[in-house]
Order: sequence, then structure tokens, then C-alpha cells
Amino acid sequence: MEQQTKPQKTRGHLTLPGEENFYQETLEILDRLGADAIRDSDGTELPENVKDLDGVMVYGKYFTARGHNAFASQHLFEASRYYLSSDFVTASGEETEIAFMSGYFAQQIRPDYDHDPQKWWEVRDRTTGEVLDTALWKIDRNQNIAIIQTVPFHVYSVSFLAYGIWDPVQMYNYLTNDWGEDVEKHIPFDIRYPESEKYVEEALEAWLKANPKVDFVRFTTFFYQFSLVFDQEGKEKYVDWYGYTNTVSPKALEDFERAYGYRLTPEDFVDEGYYNCNFRVPSQAFRDYQDFTARFVAQHAKRLVDLVHQYNKKAIMFLGDHWIGVEPWGPYFAEIGLDGVVGSVGDGVTLRLISSIEAPMHEGRFLPYFFPDTFFEGNDEAILAEAKDNWTKARRALMREPLDRIGYGGYLSLAYKFPDFIQYIEDLAEEYRDILARIEHAKPRQMAKVAVLNAWGKLRSWGSHIVAHGKWYKLCYSYLGVLEALAGMDVEVSFISFDDVRADLGLDCDVIINMGDAYTAFSGAENFLDPEVVTRLRQFVHQGGGFIGIGEPSAIQAQGRFFQLADVLGVDKEVGFSQSTDKYFDQALDQHFITADVHEALDFGETTANVYALSAETEIIAYANQEVHLASHDFGQGRAVYITGLPYSAQNTRLLKRAIAYASHKEVELNRYFAQDDRLEVNAYPTRGEYCVINNSADQVTSLVYDGQGRAQKLTLPGAGLVWLKDVEGR
Amino acid sequence: MEQQTKPQKTRGHLTLPGEENFYQETLEILDRLGADAIRDSDGTELPENVKDLDGVMVYGKYFTARGHNAFASQHLFEASRYYLSSDFVTASGEETEIAFMSGYFAQQIRPDYDHDPQKWWEVRDRTTGEVLDTALWKIDRNQNIAIIQTVPFHVYSVSFLAYGIWDPVQMYNYLTNDWGEDVEKHIPFDIRYPESEKYVEEALEAWLKANPKVDFVRFTTFFYQFSLVFDQEGKEKYVDWYGYTNTVSPKALEDFERAYGYRLTPEDFVDEGYYNCNFRVPSQAFRDYQDFTARFVAQHAKRLVDLVHQYNKKAIMFLGDHWIGVEPWGPYFAEIGLDGVVGSVGDGVTLRLISSIEAPMHEGRFLPYFFPDTFFEGNDEAILAEAKDNWTKARRALMREPLDRIGYGGYLSLAYKFPDFIQYIEDLAEEYRDILARIEHAKPRQMAKVAVLNAWGKLRSWGSHIVAHGKWYKLCYSYLGVLEALAGMDVEVSFISFDDVRADLGLDCDVIINMGDAYTAFSGAENFLDPEVVTRLRQFVHQGGGFIGIGEPSAIQAQGRFFQLADVLGVDKEVGFSQSTDKYFDQALDQHFITADVHEALDFGETTANVYALSAETEIIAYANQEVHLASHDFGQGRAVYITGLPYSAQNTRLLKRAIAYASHKEVELNRYFAQDDRLEVNAYPTRGEYCVINNSADQVTSLVYDGQGRAQKLTLPGAGLVWLKDVEGR
Repeated sequence: MEQQTKPQKTRGHLTLPGEENFYQETLEILDRLGADAIRDSDGTELPENVKDLDGVMVYGKYFTARGHNAFASQHLFEASRYYLSSDFVTASGEETEIAFMSGYFAQQIRPDYDHDPQKWWEVRDRTTGEVLDTALWKIDRNQNIAIIQTVPFHVYSVSFLAYGIWDPVQMYNYLTNDWGEDVEKHIPFDIRYPESEKYVEEALEAWLKANPKVDFVRFTTFFYQFSLVFDQEGKEKYVDWYGYTNTVSPKALEDFERAYGYRLTPEDFVDEGYYNCNFRVPSQAFRDYQDFTARFVAQHAKRLVDLVHQYNKKAIMFLGDHWIGVEPWGPYFAEIGLDGVVGSVGDGVTLRLISSIEAPMHEGRFLPYFFPDTFFEGNDEAILAEAKDNWTKARRALMREPLDRIGYGGYLSLAYKFPDFIQYIEDLAEEYRDILARIEHAKPRQMAKVAVLNAWGKLRSWGSHIVAHGKWYKLCYSYLGVLEALAGMDVEVSFISFDDVRADLGLDCDVIINMGDAYTAFSGAENFLDPEVVTRLRQFVHQGGGFIGIGEPSAIQAQGRFFQLADVLGVDKEVGFSQSTDKYFDQALDQHFITADVHEALDFGETTANVYALSAETEIIAYANQEVHLASHDFGQGRAVYITGLPYSAQNTRLLKRAIAYASHKEVELNRYFAQDDRLEVNAYPTRGEYCVINNSADQVTSLVYDGQGRAQKLTLPGAGLVWLKDVEGR
Repeated sequence: MEQQTKPQKTRGHLTLPGEENFYQETLEILDRLGADAIRDSDGTELPENVKDLDGVMVYGKYFTARGHNAFASQHLFEASRYYLSSDFVTASGEETEIAFMSGYFAQQIRPDYDHDPQKWWEVRDRTTGEVLDTALWKIDRNQNIAIIQTVPFHVYSVSFLAYGIWDPVQMYNYLTNDWGEDVEKHIPFDIRYPESEKYVEEALEAWLKANPKVDFVRFTTFFYQFSLVFDQEGKEKYVDWYGYTNTVSPKALEDFERAYGYRLTPEDFVDEGYYNCNFRVPSQAFRDYQDFTARFVAQHAKRLVDLVHQYNKKAIMFLGDHWIGVEPWGPYFAEIGLDGVVGSVGDGVTLRLISSIEAPMHEGRFLPYFFPDTFFEGNDEAILAEAKDNWTKARRALMREPLDRIGYGGYLSLAYKFPDFIQYIEDLAEEYRDILARIEHAKPRQMAKVAVLNAWGKLRSWGSHIVAHGKWYKLCYSYLGVLEALAGMDVEVSFISFDDVRADLGLDCDVIINMGDAYTAFSGAENFLDPEVVTRLRQFVHQGGGFIGIGEPSAIQAQGRFFQLADVLGVDKEVGFSQSTDKYFDQALDQHFITADVHEALDFGETTANVYALSAETEIIAYANQEVHLASHDFGQGRAVYITGLPYSAQNTRLLKRAIAYASHKEVELNRYFAQDDRLEVNAYPTRGEYCVINNSADQVTSLVYDGQGRAQKLTLPGAGLVWLKDVEGR
């Protein structure tokens, strides 16, 4: 990274991990990097002398509902629970045994026989969808087997209530790092139950008293772990970063029934084995249950935060682990009164997942973690490469919505052995603080307002298409690429739901993006059968709005269309039924505004098969394999753009920026604060009268760069470099 | 093609086209090729002296319901009709005009204002699916516009009754060949109406009297044209070789209501704009209407055939054009009493589409047609290539289920200018007659019995996945390839429907194949929600049967599965909802019985995205792009094979043969009557004590060939060659 001039060293806004027997080196690095806070980790404790340093704040991690085995082992009835589905088993005779624990890890999952299976469990005929009468099945508790009277060749599953008796995150660390029998296996417990409810507050107070030197209590997190279940070999079996499967209990169901007037069933949780994952259009029962859980969690989290405040400490939470019910974009988050949030930054999307939260402080943990799997001898280059990639991706997003603090995790002593890396993060911290100082209170100029429309809306801001946080998935990357592009683009981004559309909320934007696979929460499925939704969206575009559909936007087969907004998009997907209709529109335009900067092969990721243009009025921009991959279509005063998929790259980011400008009729705005070369991006801060050009690539780049008046100058930036330029008034 | 020894020339079983002013050459070619019949075509007449030739039968084409303009123009009220849909139009205000004729060809289509639109037409709100009250719209008959009171941003369409006033097949020939104003435009008429009903018999009788020299009356065909509609520029707009859109009339609807006790609506025909095409799972209303039409057509066709017989002539029908209602695999076909069927042979599938019909005589028209677009100077090589490709593909199928006659169409004088071609078809005719003589009464040995399961069953035998006869479609070729492979494979093939499965019919087979895209008639869609269907299929496999699923077999999203027979197949398709479940099975086996002969890159055609193995019990045979492309799975005593798609090729034919052997546990049968090289195929005729090895390629091939005992010998065949070998008793 480039420093234009070497200014006086700055300090602050940086948290580093501490460890025992590393005092002098810790002092040295804290000073070099200008760090002002030090933290412990899962598995490490801070030495006392580090806690005593002047001007260095102390972060103390705190596990609320795990890591208290003395209590938990005495209250196993209050351990966390799941509703889980057995394998789907095909009956071949009139009696079928289902070993419902098959595929689960006995050290994590244990059937809840404290509650009568006949009352709390369900056996389903998955061929008819019907629940079996309880007279038709019984449970062999010794063998964990359901014995079911079956119709031959129907498929059956058992939905059973189970204890989660080992915290899955600790389990993962435990098994991965081979911690061995001397480390306790954390039993998670559930504050729905009275002893646990009381205990968490008492334990926290005791801890606060015992840890007077901690300035920031870092909750990891509150009460309910996101869905994370392991298989019989202890390998990950099911993961949903947003999943509620580990929040359930008989008490919760009974409380819910009192509050909402109806009873939830095991199927409301098991959901055909899909467990209401992020991709399912949420049922009303699940929405109600989410709301119910979030209110409960917020109430109880607030009590803990209040307690922290009573001890004159700050309370922050980690975005992940036991964070279910505290989704920071939900309606109850503000009530908790947290002083900040902290989370892991893998890229631009995850940075904004943190920085967009309405909270007093946002801190991002950068990569790589100082762990032995990365920081081993000879791996210097890979370490530097990961750090640089992480920073350049994050920096784009930071320019739009900054973090208040950054930090690292792991073992400082490991990182210390890599001086080039230490030098890099020293420079990085300087660059970060310089950026922050300039833009902390300056709103960046936005070329356009973009709303991402899906079934979750604001609740899953920046979190659409996430399965496990930070992991690549085949069915996601072609959509996540769009979010990654948006994370650092000079547009204002909001996330809106179909309910917002129905209520005319969030439509004060220039462009609506709808993207995802058919029938998922992200494209929206049955929401597009609601006349209110489609008419409002059509009206929005007809009156001049822009609409960008990616993948299978508005898809649900009905009334002669697969894309319900085919009239707006000018394209539909052939699913077989309209093959008899000749399709004559197969010529892509020679050139187009949207693809004007394309210089390498187009990459639409997974692509969506068999999309075709409905009429000659559709501008086909990319056509291959007898399919439309990119198109535009005017609709009334507005305009739609269709893209088959868009993984993250510099070229695709540019393509999306142009698509937004085109869809919103802002072509003329493109050349303001704009770099010809797509490796560079420009962010302007009108109230500061300056703009910043960043190089997102590792290459030295020379490019024309346009100012706010559209006047060009030639600039050269080194790899990953950045430069601040003064805005000059127009002639 | 190779002749082993030059035997005495044979004669017969061959029809050639005749034309005027070509008498001597016609005699010469008839003699050289041993032809025993001569025919006229659309646009040509046979000269009298050709009709008088000894030993040469005369075929006379006969148009039943077109080509009689003197009558038709006097009875325009009885012209053929359609229910058609206007474009789908999005309302932007409270009154919307739909120019319903937009996109139609005024010379073909004319609104039927003889029947009150308010009674016979329908305006639909395609956003809600509702029919509009007739008070909400009116028709401007001068401008052909519907004026509709609309909800802004709802989508509307008009389903209107229209006359078809120009026969679309003649129109196509007319426009393509630029026939000009002196040729009459054939007006098709509808025998539902009394004058036409009477007229067709009188006209035929007059024609029979006027054409005493005709031996075979070739009906082209009977009364109703398959769906073929042109656009405003006279280009094909909609084509469905099996389509019933041109059979409708107010009289038909009234008769139907009397017979079936309920009234059909325009939507029963328009079907959201899909017009009940071959790919739609047929509604009960459409099935009823098909039955109603087929019975009517059969009754009236029988009268014409009887008339032909009264004049001591034979009656045959052409498979196509006005053939709707005479589907030869339907229940009423036999009643008609036809003496034979004739159709165009484009490949193995279309050969068997003809040869599998239960009729006394089957004749195939081979390619290329002797038309100027092919038979032009300098095109010798392409002509020969097309003829050879056509013959080698057809010959495979012929070995399984022979045609009784072959023939050519077009202008003999054109073909005459290409002596190499004439020589080729002379040899071809000899080879054909030799094959026919040997196998006409000999049933070929079948390695296995295969049933193709779809929503149509027997009714569309060999006709599944056809849009326009003989044309390539992107969403079809990966399935049609399977049929093409089967057409020449040593297996017995039947076509069964879900109703057959429900009634336990057709399950006396070794392997069931279910193939097609999700939700189409070919994969079966909602049929797989019927417990009776899935339990019988599961039972079939569990008790030892084989099941081969191709593309999206048994696909319909329900109860946690996309493939409803995922338990049988061992694979399912990820559509987004189960991404949270880890998928660990991604290793293909190093080798497998099914792919043992693979020697070039696997080609699964369009492939089906995101198929994954459900458990370690699934044998993954081909895995690429993080997807299962080929797999096998044991289920009870039986076995399933999944293939993502299978375009036609020698390698894929072999792969399918092996998949059938594997699925049916007949691995040991594979090496009987078998050639190592996949370009060769072996057909055995036990009752004749001989077997035939054919070379389907243009290459000389040397290969091990196994006899019925599995004993190998090395054979060399020239390109496209064949050899007959005597069966020797086992040791």
C-alpha cells in the first residue's frame, strides 16, 4: 500500500490479541501498530500486566450460555434443544424401524426423553405429507429406534426433540485442535428455563466483579447458537448462520402458544428437513417464532448489558455463534443498548454486514487469524497475499461505510515471527486511520439509490445468500458477487422485503434489484403471485424506476410465465412449455452502454439456462449457448436489465455499475468521479471537497480518472495504492 | 454399403415420385431400383402413361379438408377454427386496448365474428388468473381491438375464436416456393359442420371415379391440421406436431358439452398460451377433448376408407399434416381400417414412429427429398452424405422393427442428374430388401424389456419430446438422444403412462426409463405426488426392477425432495433449500461397468445442474462441476441409474445399453451378440439362426464381435457395412 507522504504516526482504532509470556513483544507491537486495545480469545487468557497498560483498553470475551459446566451439568434438563429430522426412510414392509439418531453425533445430540415423545415428537409420512397417529408408532429408548406401522413404499421420517449437550462451536475448536479430555466440553443451556435464566445474570455479575480491569465485555454472543449440527463422525452435517433450530424447547413452545394463540408443531421447525433455512420463503409460523424469540432474547440481553453498564464497562457483541435472536437489523436490537458490535471481515460484504448496523461502534476482525494453520514457517507469501486480498476487498466497502475500529485475532506470538506481515499491518493500520479520519463524518457521494428486494428485506441486510458465514457455495456465488460489487460501489444500498413493497416503503430508490434462484426467499417465489406486489413493482418501473433482475428474478410458474415480471424484464425462461413458440430474437447488439468497458470474456458464473427475449423490443446484450445472458428492456418511463448471474470481479463490478446507471437513466452520471480502468474506483466526499481513487488490484494501473465535473486526468497508482485528490470547482 | 456377394437383383417394396415429361428416364430408374410403385406429390401430377405401367402401383395423394376451394369458398362459415391468445399486455391505465390480431398473419387468421365474442371469447386477467366479466370489455370489429376496463399494471390477454382461412402447410409451400397469385390458397374446412361433412364423402367418391388408375389413395391426411400458426410476416409462430388447436369450433364445443356433460372454455384450449402442447401434463379437460376428437375423426375417416375399399383401392395415410385425431397409438385407430401408413424418416426414432404402428403396411419416406434446395449443381457430396447418414441411422431401427416399404419424394428429374446418388439408392434398395427378406417374419432377440414412462404413455410412442417433427430443440435433444439410441438397440421398447402404472400395466419389463425436464409431461410432474404411482414404482425396483432416470426424473418439489424418487435414484437435485446440509459425496469411482467402453469425453448434452448424491451408497460414476452427472444406486433387489442427459452418439448408445444391462442385473447378457467397438451393433434373429453386424459409422472398423454364447471373433467391416453371420450352437 502506498503512503503519499509519511505523516506523523497515528494511533488508536486497533485491537490486537494478547497472550501469556509475551509481554515485551506485545508492548513493542502495540506501539508500532498504534493499537489501543487488547483482547483475549476462545482458549486464551490475558496476563495481568497486559491488562494494566496505560492507554490500552481491555476486551474480555464472555460466554453467556456455555462454558459454565459446573452449573450446566447440574441442570441438564435446561440444556439447549433442537427439533431434528431423522433420515427419510422408505418402508419396504408394514413395520419399519427408523434409527433416528443415525447421522447425528452422540456427543452433541441426545434424544429428549424427559418429554414424552408421543406428545412432543412427530412421525410423518413423507409420501402423503401426513402426520401419523401416535398409535402407529412407538420408541425404543434403549436403541433410539422408532418402530412404525407403515404402508409399504411410503417414505417416513421422525421429527424428534433432542438435547444439544455440547456447544458446537467449542466442539469444532475442540475436535479441530485436538484439545483432549482435560478440556471440559461446554454444555449449552437455555435461559427459557428458570434456573438458567437466573444463573446467567448471577454468573455475569460474579465475573464482572472478578474482572475489574476489563473495559469492554465482548459477548460471544448471547443465548442461542446458530444452526450447527455434526454428523456421526463429528463432521459438519448442517449449518445455517441464520438458523433457529437450536432455540427450541417445550417451554418455548408453551410460552409461544400463550402469546400467539396457536401451537407450533415439530414440522414448523423441521420444515421437510430444510429447517427454515435462509433460502426458504419464511412461513408465517416461522416469522412469528422469530419475532417471539427475538423479543425474548432482546429483553434478556438488555438485562446483561445493563449489568455491564452498572459496572462501568462497555458491552459489545460478536456477530455470530450464539447470536440467534439478536439479528442487528431486527426491531428489538436497539433496545438491548449495546455499545458496539464486532465481527469477522472476509470481504466487502461481511464488512458492511458489520458497519451497516445501527450501533455506536463497529469493529471488524481482519484476516488472516494468527493461527498455526496459516502462520507456519515458509508461508510468508501466502500470509501476505491473504492479508492484502482481505484488505483491498474490505477497503472498497470501508470507503462507503467505515468501521470504527479494526483488529486481529489469534496468537500474537505467531504473527511476530513474520516481520513482513507485521510491517504490512502497520502500514495498513496507518492507511485505515487516515481514511477513517477523513470520512468518519463525511457521507460519500452516491450515484444512485439501490434497493435489494427479497423475502427477508432489512432483517438480512448484506446477508442474503449466506449459508455459512464467509464460505463459497455453488448456488450462491453468482449472486453474492453482486452484493460484493455493491459493497464498494458509489451507490446507496438498502434491503427491502415484499411487505415493504406492499406498504410502499423503500421504493424511493433509483433501482430495485431482485436476484436468486427460483422459489427461494431471494427471488421471492409466491410473493410474485400477489397482485399488489407485481403491480407496485410494475408501476415503479413504468414511472421511471430501474429494475435489475439476476438469475431467476420474480420466478414462479403461473399464468403462462416463469418470470412473473417478464413484461418488465423483456425476457422469460423457457422451462419447456413454450418451446412450440418460435423464438426469433437471438442477435446480441454489437455494442451497448452496459458492456462498453468489457475487456475480457464475460463471466456470468453459474448462469441461468434457457432465458429468451420476448420481443424485438428487448435489447439483447450478451447471447450465448442459445440463451440470453444479459439484456435490457424499456418499460414505460423506466428500464429493466436482466443478468443471468454475476460473480465478483473488477469487470463485473463495472458491468453492474453501468447496469445501474443504465437502468436508472443516469448514463450521464457515470463519468463523474469515475476511473476508466475497472481496477480503480473513485469515492467522493462532497462535504470534504475531496475524492479518493483506490486501486483494488495488485497491479500498477495507469488510467484516465474523471472528477465531479467529468474532467479527465491521467493517473498512475501502484498496486493496491490509493490517492486523495481535491475537488476543483467546475468552470 | 457393402454387398457380400452380388446376388440376383431383387424388386419391390420401393416407391418413387413421378412427374410429367420424364417418361423414359422414369422407366429406366424404376427398373434399375426395382421400384414397384410411383406417386405424386403436393404440386405434381402423374402423367397417364406412367400410371399405365405394368407391375407398378400408383399412389394418389388426396387432400380431404383442403384443396377444394370451389366448395370451401362457398362455405366460409365452415372453415377451420382456432382458439388463440392475444399477446399478454400490461395495463398502464384503467382502459387498455389489445390488438388481439397483433402477431398473427391476416391471410391465415381471421377473427370469427359470426359468433358473438361476448359469448365465445374470454378476456383474462393474467395477474390474478381471473376471467373478466363481459361487461368490462368490448370489441371494435373494424380494428380488431379489444377495449378493456383494466386494473393498472395487471396483465391481460384476449382468447379469441378465429377462422383459419389458409391451410398452413400449403401456405408454407406457397410462400417458400413463391407460387404466386395464380395458385389458389387452400381454405381448410371443418367436417363438424354438415355441408363439409357431406362434401368430403361426395368429393372423395367423385375423385375415386375420376382416378381409376390409382391403386393406393394416400390421405394427407384426414380432417385436422396439427398446430401451425404464422406470424405477421408469414413466418412460423407456433408449431406443435401433436397440437389440437386447429380442431376447435362452436359446434365441437356444443357437441362436447352434450357428450361429456360440461362445457369447455377458451382457456381449456389456450392454456395460458401453451395450448396444451406436448410438454404440458394434460388436463382432464384436454384428455376428454382429445378422446372426443379422436372418436369423431375415426368414425369419419372410416367412412372415407370404406369408400376407397368400395372402389377396390387401398387406403393409406400420411403421418402428419391433417393427422390430428388419428394418432395411430390411440384407441380408435384400428377402427378406421387403413391399409397402411406412410411417413417421413429422419432418423431411427421417426422410423419407429412409423414401423411401430399397428397397421398392415408401413412405408417410410427417406431423405433427402429431391428438391432444388438440395439437388443443385455441385452439391453431390452433401447429397450423398445426407443419404448415407439418413440410411445408417434408419437402418439401426429397421433391424429392430422393419418398414414394409421405403420410398422417396420430390422431383425424380432432379435426382437423375446425380448418378452417384442414384447408384447409392440402388444399392440401398437392394440392401433394404435383403434385410427385409431375412427379418420380416423374425422377431429379433431382445436383451431386455424397457418401458419409457411419461404422462402420455403409448399415445405418444416414440413421439415424446417432439415439438416440430424432425427438428432439433435445445430442451429436447438430450432426451431425444435416448430414444434414438433405443430405436436401434437390442431391447424391446414400450411406452407407458402413469395411468398404466396405477393399473399395474406395462410393468412386466426389466427397466423403466423416466426422463425429461421438471414439471413437463415427460418427467411427469404432479403424477409423482400420487402415492399410488410412487409406491408401485418403488415396489417395482425393490423387487428387482431397473429404473433409469434422465434429466429431472420424478421431479416436483414436495416434502423435502425435488426428485420424488430420490430414495430410489440415490440422488436429488439441489434447488437451494438444502444447501445448509453438507454434501460429502463428490468422488467418482475410478471405473464402472456402465462407462467401461467410454473412450472419448463424456457428453451429457444440456445436463441438469446441481444433482448430488444422497449417501455413500450411491455409486457416483461421473462427477464434474461439483455435480453428479452419472450415478447408480441399489434399491432393494433392484437398481437405479441416474444420467443427467444423453444426446445421441455411438458412445452414448453404448453407455445406455450398459446402463440398461446394469440396472436390470443383466451384466452377463451384455457380451452376447455384442461388438466391442461401439460403432458396430449386433442384431440376432433366433428363429433364423443368424445374426447381423452393422457398422453405423462411415469408418472401416475392426472389432471383436461376440456371438450368442459370448465367443469372440475379430471382424472388419467397411464404413456403413453389414454382415450376416450364422449362429453356431454352443459347445
